[in-house]
Amino acid sequence: MKVLSECRAKGVKVCVIFTSDSDSMSPTGTYGLGELISNFISKAGGPRIVGPNCIGVYCSRSGVAFTPNFPKEPGKVAFISQSGGFAAELGWFGARIGLRFSKIVSYGNAVDLDLPDFLAYFREDSDTGVVAVYVEGVKDGRRTFKELTVKKPVLVWKGGITEEGAKAALSHTQSLAGSATLWSTMLKQAGAIQVESFEGLAYTSIAFSFYKPPVDNSVAIVSVSGGGAVASADTCTREGLLITRLSDTTINALRRVVPRFGTSIRNPVDAQRGALSPEACSEVLRIVLSDLNVSAVILV
Amino acid sequence: MKVLSECRAKGVKVCVIFTSDSDSMSPTGTYGLGELISNFISKAGGPRIVGPNCIGVYCSRSGVAFTPNFPKEPGKVAFISQSGGFAAELGWFGARIGLRFSKIVSYGNAVDLDLPDFLAYFREDSDTGVVAVYVEGVKDGRRTFKELTVKKPVLVWKGGITEEGAKAALSHTQSLAGSATLWSTMLKQAGAIQVESFEGLAYTSIAFSFYKPPVDNSVAIVSVSGGGAVASADTCTREGLLITRLSDTTINALRRVVPRFGTSIRNPVDAQRGALSPEACSEVLRIVLSDLNVSAVILV
Repeated sequence: MKVLSECRAKGVKVCVIFTSDSDSMSPTGTYGLGELISNFISKAGGPRIVGPNCIGVYCSRSGVAFTPNFPKEPGKVAFISQSGGFAAELGWFGARIGLRFSKIVSYGNAVDLDLPDFLAYFREDSDTGVVAVYVEGVKDGRRTFKELTVKKPVLVWKGGITEEGAKAALSHTQSLAGSATLWSTMLKQAGAIQVESFEGLAYTSIAFSFYKPPVDNSVAIVSVSGGGAVASADTCTREGLLITRLSDTTINALRRVVPRFGTSIRNPVDAQRGALSPEACSEVLRIVLSDLNVSAVILV
Repeated sequence: MKVLSECRAKGVKVCVIFTSDSDSMSPTGTYGLGELISNFISKAGGPRIVGPNCIGVYCSRSGVAFTPNFPKEPGKVAFISQSGGFAAELGWFGARIGLRFSKIVSYGNAVDLDLPDFLAYFREDSDTGVVAVYVEGVKDGRRTFKELTVKKPVLVWKGGITEEGAKAALSHTQSLAGSATLWSTMLKQAGAIQVESFEGLAYTSIAFSFYKPPVDNSVAIVSVSGGGAVASADTCTREGLLITRLSDTTINALRRVVPRFGTSIRNPVDAQRGALSPEACSEVLRIVLSDLNVSAVILV
């Protein structure tokens, strides 16, 4: 608290507190750091706190990073993570798969600044076009709901959606995980997209970084393998996408480009890798994209 | 058919026919190659046929491969694939993730040899300990069911389980995909494990290559990140695993190794990467594995 007093005296606006508050010997699992900080800032009126139990803030524009060798290529995704481990991991994993960040905030136990504060910030942040979230619990559900409707795509991975996960969340960030159904309903109503895994968060973030949402759920699949066509048709159907009927004009145009044997000219289009030049493949995509029944094309 | 006659005259036992039977201009989607082959072998009594519409056979022991640069490190997984694309892809993908094969068979339209024939072969093959399958349809369901109970783990990815997927399967390998429910029930009754994606097949195959099945569903999670502990607890619970209570002996032993602050000594064990040496991490695993309530440990 001495350091916080000094920060306040110097006019520091925000402090990031890395220290964890968990104590594996204590019956409550904590040694009370959170309470000390809460009491201090409620009396002293500042500074604002990120943490405790976090790894701080990454900002690609300014170069502030979790570690000196952290990936720094800028992108339009902001990541708000209650887990420091996932904050760093998504940065590293992202660098391997083409996912780039504007900022990453690890905010841990959230004794002061919490998810809705960061959502409000990223709504205004011009470097950010997509907001990814890992959250275990929030103190103010109503404010969270309000700030989730940020007019930018918000992707949320909620940790602690099972009973055992919720117990682990209480140990980890002292979060009350809340009801899984309540969270799903809230996210749906707010127009946020719920994902269920680390990879889900990563790949959905990439999708929203590069693609505009299609006008409806009609897709065409273009595959260079018959098995790929079958598996993609299964996956799309399971996920509620409509494998639309191609128009006669499209079918006839495809017949002039796709080889006759070993292929299938319907949706999915099985165009056979071996028989198709890169130019012909582009032409196939161009033809399918110009079909008015098709809102998006998946190339397998 | 001339070549097949010559093969028969020479005493060739098995022919692999790569040629596809599909014709995108024909109303039935085929030009009748399958029927020609069927008629020939039913009259001539041989040779046996793999295909048509396949890419043949890979055998790590003999070095027969799909392409000269195909990965050749031997392993105990056999892959029976109705898709040539997936046969090759799983070999390549496997090489990147540590999945090695005894043999891979791409068998396409299966006018003669079909899934049950290959299952019967791999039951006896001493190089094979795990059988992975990609199948779109079979001609003889009853025989397939019988051969699925091969006393080795059999992992099955069924393509064409949705209406659109089934249509694509008909175009691809002229397979009647059959009812999704019937397949799931058959696989379950036969003791085979159904997976739903390429990655699912790959990673489940790896798991069965390296691990013996645990005696029951009681698991312990050891995590070096709090978020990892929460997410793993959610995943395990969703998948029907029991996050068991650790014994007092285990808890006390862990307290001597795991740092007091920033950790959580319960199941999941949140042991904090930063605070733990590799030796201490091994010791944590040893302690948790010796708990009689724990049948398997997941390290996150």
